[in-house]
Amino acid sequence: MNDILQALYNHVSIRRYTDKPVAEETLQLILKAACSGSTMGNMQLFSVIVTQDDAMKRKLAPFHFNQPMATEAPLILTFCADFRRFNRYCEFRQADTEAYSNRQSYQWAVTDALIAAQNACVAAESLGLGFCWLGTITYNVDKFVEVLELPRHVIPVSCVTMGYPAEHPALTQKLPVEAFVHRETYHDYDKETIDRLYAEKENSEETRQILEENQLDNLAQVFTQRRYTRQDNEHFAQVLEDTLRRQGF
Amino acid sequence: MNDILQALYNHVSIRRYTDKPVAEETLQLILKAACSGSTMGNMQLFSVIVTQDDAMKRKLAPFHFNQPMATEAPLILTFCADFRRFNRYCEFRQADTEAYSNRQSYQWAVTDALIAAQNACVAAESLGLGFCWLGTITYNVDKFVEVLELPRHVIPVSCVTMGYPAEHPALTQKLPVEAFVHRETYHDYDKETIDRLYAEKENSEETRQILEENQLDNLAQVFTQRRYTRQDNEHFAQVLEDTLRRQGF
Repeated sequence: MNDILQALYNHVSIRRYTDKPVAEETLQLILKAACSGSTMGNMQLFSVIVTQDDAMKRKLAPFHFNQPMATEAPLILTFCADFRRFNRYCEFRQADTEAYSNRQSYQWAVTDALIAAQNACVAAESLGLGFCWLGTITYNVDKFVEVLELPRHVIPVSCVTMGYPAEHPALTQKLPVEAFVHRETYHDYDKETIDRLYAEKENSEETRQILEENQLDNLAQVFTQRRYTRQDNEHFAQVLEDTLRRQGF
Repeated sequence: MNDILQALYNHVSIRRYTDKPVAEETLQLILKAACSGSTMGNMQLFSVIVTQDDAMKRKLAPFHFNQPMATEAPLILTFCADFRRFNRYCEFRQADTEAYSNRQSYQWAVTDALIAAQNACVAAESLGLGFCWLGTITYNVDKFVEVLELPRHVIPVSCVTMGYPAEHPALTQKLPVEAFVHRETYHDYDKETIDRLYAEKENSEETRQILEENQLDNLAQVFTQRRYTRQDNEHFAQVLEDTLRRQGF
């Protein structure tokens, strides 16, 4: 076991931060890590929008459903799939500027943006910062495009709040590693396997509390009936689809 | 500068590997890192297909366009966006099994899969292994679904070859960090900025060789006319779209 593994294993999302600002020097170390990852054909198809201004945080907050960390975090990094820069390069070099206006190319840029985002997160933790991903970034993607003034061929795909931790939560309860691993081909899950994999989670005190609060029988119903319902998901899927088209993908 | 930053900054893709196999214990350390990252609502929406069998590597190789590393690497990890496991959980707990059959939910699972993949890569490097991402995984996604026997709601999004390095390439030439960073809002690229950001890359010996081999004027044309043409991209975008629909997203 080395320090890097230890750091990865001990990751826990931090949602409350101290007042200590993130120094520019620290930010630069994080951004350099974001830019050091693997990238499709070395095209580096992402951008990072750095949010530090309080007025801008308040402007973005409603689209993050006013989660407290969206205004309380000293630093917010929004990672975008970005073919704009590369297309501008093509434009100024007499090359096809519409070769990447499609969903295959979008997928490459999403991949580059998420590798960059996760690298930034690992770097931030190594510098004593905590972070939390905001899933809301892909929900209200049309609004983020507008407020962040993203041009055609740029779409936000991940958003991370960062700051120095004002809380020290325990590790999140996860499924056992074997739940995710398939050897050579996919092996489907039967009821017995699902029961076994979810047993620890279902029997925890945390789950008991959630079920009591929600007055529901199990976690699956909490997800499908409260947290992420079909109706909401289908609505936000349409927003994402419309925004992808409008942004040229 | 700490060890973790140093490791992230020194990343370089490794395409040639020694014969040394990856021990099961090492694989488990890597897989644990993959499972330790952030995840949407703690739903953990990914799976990893572990390929170590030579016959399976040969079966998959044509869809990776027979890149040598697709058969020569001792280990291949294919990370999939996976709502199957969660939907099976819903099915066995009398909850809605179609709440996540949409592109918003797909985007969450893609995010989880890529966080897991990048964590696995960082872990692997810390253990002395090298790796390289295979972009081909999203090109021939229909074939990978078939050969890896992926059920509905499972789609491969990233594929990484891993092994002990038999080469030690220099760091890849990247754009300067400032190329990716936007403060508060997006600042579009004018010709002067593009010229400046790409100058070092365009003036390198590596670029001179590429242009000579391709008999083209600049790198933008190498990308749009040779490596990733509009025609190919649009074809593979259609394959991806068809496969996403067929897999229930």
